[in-house]
Amino acid sequence: MKNISTYVNQHRDRFLNELIDLLKIPSISADSAYKKDVEQTAEVVKTRLEEAGCDHVEICETDGYPIVYGEKIIDKKLPTVLVYGHYDVQPPDPLNLWNSPPFEPIIKKTELHPEGAIFARGACDDKGQMYMHVKAMEFMTKTNQLPCNVKFMIEGEEEVGSSNLAIFVKKNQEKLKNDVILISDTGMIAKDVPSITTGLRGLSYVEVEVTGPNRDLHSGLYGGAVANPINVLTKMIASLHDENNHITIPGFYDKVENLSKEERAEMAKAPFSLEAYKKSLDIDAVYGEAGYTTNERNSIRPTLDVNGIWGGYTGEGAKTVIASKAFAKISMRLVPHQDWEEITQLFKTHFESIAPKGVTVKVKPHHGGQGYVTPIDSIGYQAASKAYFDTFGKTPIPQRSGGSIPIVALFEQELKSKTILMGFGLDSDAIHSPNEHYGLFNYYKGIETIPLFYKYFTELSK
Amino acid sequence: MKNISTYVNQHRDRFLNELIDLLKIPSISADSAYKKDVEQTAEVVKTRLEEAGCDHVEICETDGYPIVYGEKIIDKKLPTVLVYGHYDVQPPDPLNLWNSPPFEPIIKKTELHPEGAIFARGACDDKGQMYMHVKAMEFMTKTNQLPCNVKFMIEGEEEVGSSNLAIFVKKNQEKLKNDVILISDTGMIAKDVPSITTGLRGLSYVEVEVTGPNRDLHSGLYGGAVANPINVLTKMIASLHDENNHITIPGFYDKVENLSKEERAEMAKAPFSLEAYKKSLDIDAVYGEAGYTTNERNSIRPTLDVNGIWGGYTGEGAKTVIASKAFAKISMRLVPHQDWEEITQLFKTHFESIAPKGVTVKVKPHHGGQGYVTPIDSIGYQAASKAYFDTFGKTPIPQRSGGSIPIVALFEQELKSKTILMGFGLDSDAIHSPNEHYGLFNYYKGIETIPLFYKYFTELSK
Repeated sequence: MKNISTYVNQHRDRFLNELIDLLKIPSISADSAYKKDVEQTAEVVKTRLEEAGCDHVEICETDGYPIVYGEKIIDKKLPTVLVYGHYDVQPPDPLNLWNSPPFEPIIKKTELHPEGAIFARGACDDKGQMYMHVKAMEFMTKTNQLPCNVKFMIEGEEEVGSSNLAIFVKKNQEKLKNDVILISDTGMIAKDVPSITTGLRGLSYVEVEVTGPNRDLHSGLYGGAVANPINVLTKMIASLHDENNHITIPGFYDKVENLSKEERAEMAKAPFSLEAYKKSLDIDAVYGEAGYTTNERNSIRPTLDVNGIWGGYTGEGAKTVIASKAFAKISMRLVPHQDWEEITQLFKTHFESIAPKGVTVKVKPHHGGQGYVTPIDSIGYQAASKAYFDTFGKTPIPQRSGGSIPIVALFEQELKSKTILMGFGLDSDAIHSPNEHYGLFNYYKGIETIPLFYKYFTELSK
Repeated sequence: MKNISTYVNQHRDRFLNELIDLLKIPSISADSAYKKDVEQTAEVVKTRLEEAGCDHVEICETDGYPIVYGEKIIDKKLPTVLVYGHYDVQPPDPLNLWNSPPFEPIIKKTELHPEGAIFARGACDDKGQMYMHVKAMEFMTKTNQLPCNVKFMIEGEEEVGSSNLAIFVKKNQEKLKNDVILISDTGMIAKDVPSITTGLRGLSYVEVEVTGPNRDLHSGLYGGAVANPINVLTKMIASLHDENNHITIPGFYDKVENLSKEERAEMAKAPFSLEAYKKSLDIDAVYGEAGYTTNERNSIRPTLDVNGIWGGYTGEGAKTVIASKAFAKISMRLVPHQDWEEITQLFKTHFESIAPKGVTVKVKPHHGGQGYVTPIDSIGYQAASKAYFDTFGKTPIPQRSGGSIPIVALFEQELKSKTILMGFGLDSDAIHSPNEHYGLFNYYKGIETIPLFYKYFTELSK
């Protein structure tokens, strides 16, 4: 392919400003207060896909937020790449920890990003990475170098479980027919260490509610005599891990894939500094399941984390009250072969079974998804590997990610095709955290690398 | 004393309307947003004391909210009663559970209060009970039947620990000199079962903060590999009770007063229905320290309750985050002989010692107070007992309360006088809870009973 970097350099300012415009819209799918913004973002994505050269773009309504679909079919005999991304973002709170407003993007230089990084919610996850594909498409069409057919499917509910996308995919298997699915919603090991994510963890996300007395009580008059829902909730949650940080839910580990010594040794080759890891988080020690390394704990092992907890008086000062109710949001990261619906049921059954007398417990499943593994001998993986080699001068390292993109397993099941996760983000990009950012180096490098995937995938498919 | 009930009946509507005006002011001492309201309440109390016949009333400034002091000295040779009460109230949240706005008092009939009850925050705790003393004073002065000297000390920080009152008392021992202290800030067993509180629990109130990573993290990328502050907090709190619900803090029980079989048998005579108790709270079972009855658990035994907990994402929907920090407000009810400052230190030392590597823990003491016991052979107790007998036709039952009025122990220490707790509230009045109320029967009965205490106390003092 010719002149990729020339084209990117000519248009770098416009490419950046278009992304900034996209980041200014607070498309928070988890909070219904932002409904209009999420919908407006879909409209902007539609327009950008048309400008990038898609022949046919449509807003596909769902029971939730719409899916933006676009395509350019140049020859039915050529392979088809389906690009998936999402235009919704995580809630930005806690707002007070942001150094600049989350929806007023600014460019700042950092130690890791001397060329500058764009700070905004969604900069990396996933507006920035999704938009690289739109600009790569623009390059290929404007320079008449698009080697195959392309379909785009950009959704607005990834951060809340993609339940409507799942329905859409099941209903539109012919429309979405493809030879490979391409996603940039993951990271790479380092700016100079390209990597391709070959595994994702599944997810089961639940909300629990513990109810004690029918009203808040004075902790002096009733303290010690009735079950305090908050104390009970802490006891119940604490009991979900044993002293080795194994999860105690019966059956939880039954289907967990156990990697061979060889596979674990292969993983251990990825460059990793425990000291740097601890330093970057300001922690004096790591913590986790006995018998596994940090990289194993957050990739090949399942987890159970409380994502939020609340109950009683949380305001200024002191209130001597026993709350009537206590709540927690709990998510479990799952590994390949663990079925998220089965795990959700195991959790529910176990959690309800450990409730002491004096309280009632409700477990409300939020959403979930299966884990996933990409074989490194597939054409798609090979094409991605060559593309990275061309732009980074290095063969990328295959790595398991601890994150979840539940929809990937569904794609394989419904569309019978493999997904290639070409991520350009860094772990330090603070996705889902205050001050999320995305390096300009990574953004432009992604735009340059993606067209090469199309080239090699088309060639290897012959 | 003559014509008490006649006078009360003549003025019952005015007595009620004056209380309603007082309850309309949201004097929430725990929330600085209500500063003006708290201060305005002090002004109203000052005016009411003047109208009730105090010779000298002043607003005494403190580093926090002011103390309203009033007095009427008729003869230095006669005994002096010091009345204590508070004009501040608990925060009303959760607001959505109130059937009517907490600061728009309304009168409603209930099963327990066929004569009607006044619903508002502070109706019982303590504006309603405090104001009975103001109206009792009015009766005695307007009918020239005040038998002794009276001093009023009404504070505005009882719900946040009375720290400035403590300083005021230490500084003004001569001004506050008295023969007995009279307080209505407790309850009685039932409308037809008058009782006098002879014991109060002490209190130690702390706030804890657990900090893990220096920022919120994506629970997929980091889940399982770093200490999750919320999971850690639940483990730490859960470990504070053993399987028998004994508190595990080393030294916690060392100074706990163990009551004799006889004393426990005496306590057990108070009318109590476990079924009714459970029914009133909609719970299927009580819960607490092994080896003690419900009435013992909430009066003669110390407790540890979480009053509030928060951390991570608590909004709508799901956020897959590992929070950087988790918090809890924890209070311990103490029994006589347990020193609250010593217990606070024991908690701090223990809680910090059980923090696992990977997190840092802060324990911030809020406030506290000592427990207290009133001897039933004292003149003050006898005078109160006779007063109740006159108005209720029954000798009141002495009872230990689970609640805390930290200042009472301080009064004894600094002013060398005993406190008589003439409470007219009911446990079902929902103090510190939504829909707090106070029975009109109790309100008027209190106004009729209090002057008789002055009469008998003066007589018995001769």
